[in-house]
Amino acid sequence: MTIPEAEDQEPTGPGLSHFNAEGGAHMVDVGRKPETRRVAIASGLVRMRPETATVIREGRAGKGDVLGVAQIAGIMATKRTADIIPLCHPLPITHVDVSLDVGEDSVAIRAEVETWGKTGVEMEALTAVSAAALTVYDMTKAIDRGMTIESIRLDSKEGGRSGRWERTDE
Amino acid sequence: MTIPEAEDQEPTGPGLSHFNAEGGAHMVDVGRKPETRRVAIASGLVRMRPETATVIREGRAGKGDVLGVAQIAGIMATKRTADIIPLCHPLPITHVDVSLDVGEDSVAIRAEVETWGKTGVEMEALTAVSAAALTVYDMTKAIDRGMTIESIRLDSKEGGRSGRWERTDE
Amino acid sequence: MTIPEAEDQEPTGPGLSHFNAEGGAHMVDVGRKPETRRVAIASGLVRMRPETATVIREGRAGKGDVLGVAQIAGIMATKRTADIIPLCHPLPITHVDVSLDVGEDSVAIRAEVETWGKTGVEMEALTAVSAAALTVYDMTKAIDRGMTIESIRLDSKEGGRSGRWERTDE
Amino acid sequence: MTIPEAEDQEPTGPGLSHFNAEGGAHMVDVGRKPETRRVAIASGLVRMRPETATVIREGRAGKGDVLGVAQIAGIMATKRTADIIPLCHPLPITHVDVSLDVGEDSVAIRAEVETWGKTGVEMEALTAVSAAALTVYDMTKAIDRGMTIESIRLDSKEGGRSGRWERTDE
Amino acid sequence: MTIPEAEDQEPTGPGLSHFNAEGGAHMVDVGRKPETRRVAIASGLVRMRPETATVIREGRAGKGDVLGVAQIAGIMATKRTADIIPLCHPLPITHVDVSLDVGEDSVAIRAEVETWGKTGVEMEALTAVSAAALTVYDMTKAIDRGMTIESIRLDSKEGGRSGRWERTDE
Amino acid sequence: MTIPEAEDQEPTGPGLSHFNAEGGAHMVDVGRKPETRRVAIASGLVRMRPETATVIREGRAGKGDVLGVAQIAGIMATKRTADIIPLCHPLPITHVDVSLDVGEDSVAIRAEVETWGKTGVEMEALTAVSAAALTVYDMTKAIDRGMTIESIRLDSKEGGRSGRWERTDE
Repeated sequence: MTIPEAEDQEPTGPGLSHFNAEGGAHMVDVGRKPETRRVAIASGLVRMRPETATVIREGRAGKGDVLGVAQIAGIMATKRTADIIPLCHPLPITHVDVSLDVGEDSVAIRAEVETWGKTGVEMEALTAVSAAALTVYDMTKAIDRGMTIESIRLDSKEGGRSGRWERTDE
Repeated sequence: MTIPEAEDQEPTGPGLSHFNAEGGAHMVDVGRKPETRRVAIASGLVRMRPETATVIREGRAGKGDVLGVAQIAGIMATKRTADIIPLCHPLPITHVDVSLDVGEDSVAIRAEVETWGKTGVEMEALTAVSAAALTVYDMTKAIDRGMTIESIRLDSKEGGRSGRWERTDE
Repeated sequence: MTIPEAEDQEPTGPGLSHFNAEGGAHMVDVGRKPETRRVAIASGLVRMRPETATVIREGRAGKGDVLGVAQIAGIMATKRTADIIPLCHPLPITHVDVSLDVGEDSVAIRAEVETWGKTGVEMEALTAVSAAALTVYDMTKAIDRGMTIESIRLDSKEGGRSGRWERTDE
Repeated sequence: MTIPEAEDQEPTGPGLSHFNAEGGAHMVDVGRKPETRRVAIASGLVRMRPETATVIREGRAGKGDVLGVAQIAGIMATKRTADIIPLCHPLPITHVDVSLDVGEDSVAIRAEVETWGKTGVEMEALTAVSAAALTVYDMTKAIDRGMTIESIRLDSKEGGRSGRWERTDE
Repeated sequence: MTIPEAEDQEPTGPGLSHFNAEGGAHMVDVGRKPETRRVAIASGLVRMRPETATVIREGRAGKGDVLGVAQIAGIMATKRTADIIPLCHPLPITHVDVSLDVGEDSVAIRAEVETWGKTGVEMEALTAVSAAALTVYDMTKAIDRGMTIESIRLDSKEGGRSGRWERTDE
Repeated sequence: MTIPEAEDQEPTGPGLSHFNAEGGAHMVDVGRKPETRRVAIASGLVRMRPETATVIREGRAGKGDVLGVAQIAGIMATKRTADIIPLCHPLPITHVDVSLDVGEDSVAIRAEVETWGKTGVEMEALTAVSAAALTVYDMTKAIDRGMTIESIRLDSKEGGRSGRWERTDE
């Protein structure tokens, strides 16, 4: 197995940069990395019964706004990422955009996050999608407990030593 | 479509109990519900390349401990659920158990949460699984950016007016 | 001056119950108070130029939703009250309802909070109104920096030893 | 109505920069803005019965210190602003000064906040004043539930593309 | 070695109740424990140069108030205990009292915390003392970087199955 | 007494820079200080019965991992420092390393924190040690309530106007 050179990787460890020389967990040293523009885009899906999707869709047009609340939840969670993910660096987020789209039997979520910092915002984008998905679940679980959250993943990232990466497997 | 009677549902709204009479979002009134024992079990999966699963597995035996850090992240996120999910009630969590299991090309996550309160802990269990999954991603993204988080879902819940519910679709 | 008997007041201090015998700040002992239903209603106003009110009103009808975001901010801040107000007790909030109403040159905000606990939720209701007001300001400050937040106040409270209180000065 | 050019405003939206092209809420992109010194000064008032002001004033000289606790609450809330206001950017605050002054029937609050960042600290200054005002209320509500929080507003701001702004209406 | 029967101990584990059957960390199940009054008292010391103690002492009498700020820090940290200590249960704190006393070359800190809940508040009292001690350090480190925090310990606890415990080694 | 020139000290105050001209607490102005690399190393000790140290040591080798959980607690608390210590500046932490070492009758804790910012990370390193120590206590208190936390102190710091400082008293 070849472990690809990683952006966050320290010279001290072979493989996983979150562990220090003694194998303990640590927050990777990014101090000497330049502050550059970094963008990450992530996405995910809440799969549900068609009736549930209909209620959400009509809710948006009519009274309730599941998508609006989930969007705010996603944006706010972006700012809490370093509180929730133990080894994440706190970063000065400069832009967040979370969008949600109701399909026939699902809600698709997409988050774009930008910083000008020393490390990337992949975790921020994935956390935004997760929080928005959980909020969709929370607000509709009364009528559909069986919903599942699927396919939360990084779609692309830009900036840093390793430059642009884009998901290619689909 | 028949909307099933929901545990958290108020008499004022047809369907989604998180919206009040005017259609705005609100935190559902659970004040008159009895404090009973409530348990929720949720699960999810981080899908990865087999090489990544191997690194995690060996990391556990050897030095680093991806699963140990993710487990703590899951437990701590349980306590932050009401901070992250806008309309969630704060609940006095009485027990949390998060377990992770490395498979051939995935890490399986399971969380069990218990409270003795006025509403259920479904969101707490799902949040624990999400945070643990994000942490697995964070700690191994240096070698496998393409990992995806899959199938985060409620497996069962107990307690409250609606009693026991178990996932049956599999 | 007669200091009225206060619900949260300890026998040790004449006047302000947040100070202990030596005059230092402390969190008042509410341990032996019964857990009863307690409700508080607070309100406030963001005063603005009529053009700003128009933009918000049309935003609601059309695409953007200043009031929806402010509503969520108010609900979420309710749950953070004990984090923000130093001597506040953490309370298991059982219901929150925040509503906003655009007038000719203002947005009126009202919050109702309920708990079943050992002390009241006056601060939670006032904090909800404050956070919603600040959010209205934040989302429209680009077009009207001169807006002011006015008349944040308790309208009524129920429950506890002192029973029902209602604002009478208007 | 002419909407004045706003500092935080994106070219994509006419008017309110907190909404993206589709009208959803987002955190405005400030990534390409220069990091400059930015200062904001805000103020507000807690209006109360003269007897309450006397108790606070004497409390300061004697034992209890309502103003000291409120000052700390204001400073700490400054650092939580981006947690409380959904679309606020997290900013590296470099200075906070909160002062409180007891008048005959009120406590006047003033906050000055500074950052060297990509966007302004208006919300941080307003949040500091709000938290300090709520704390004054909390610490004296036992003797005066009728207090109101009035006139929370931005007094001036410096820095950024739009430069200095000063309240002129009084 | 005989491991004394512990209040928080589960029947499944011999010794440390924070680990579940498989040895992973978990939040101990306290759900079936009765809600009783529980009190914990902890203390600690910040050791410093006599000149530093003098500055603090005079600061209290005169203008600045190191002890007042540290007291608030201790009270507020009590409420954040379950956020900071991974396996701590969130508890409805009903009373907190933090006091600080300047000696010749030290500041002595004492915290008393009470809850009516299913588990004890030992960690809350120790966290209050720690946060107050760190704040004393922070506020005086400009003149005495060599200060040390000493002897943070539980002095007594009451309530729960194991009843009263008092430190006897001195 | 000569008060040594302090790094964080403002020209306005003689002695303690956390107080402004009127003697109130404020967050010191660091805006005009250059962003340089700053490192702080702190340490501390949890003193315990030899049997307790043995259980922790064996726990590490076998199943449970007191030290692993405490390490994560220390790292995460570093990021919460400005939330817990009232007058601390929020800083963009770029590296954290927390290590724990079981001795015969104690656990030794050491934290190294780095930032590239306008002020130092002494408080972050001390907070990391404190949180790790409290977590060790929490996870073993069931078998040894008498443990004490000792000798939390700064060992060295680098960067900033005052340059390198190293503890010399031992």
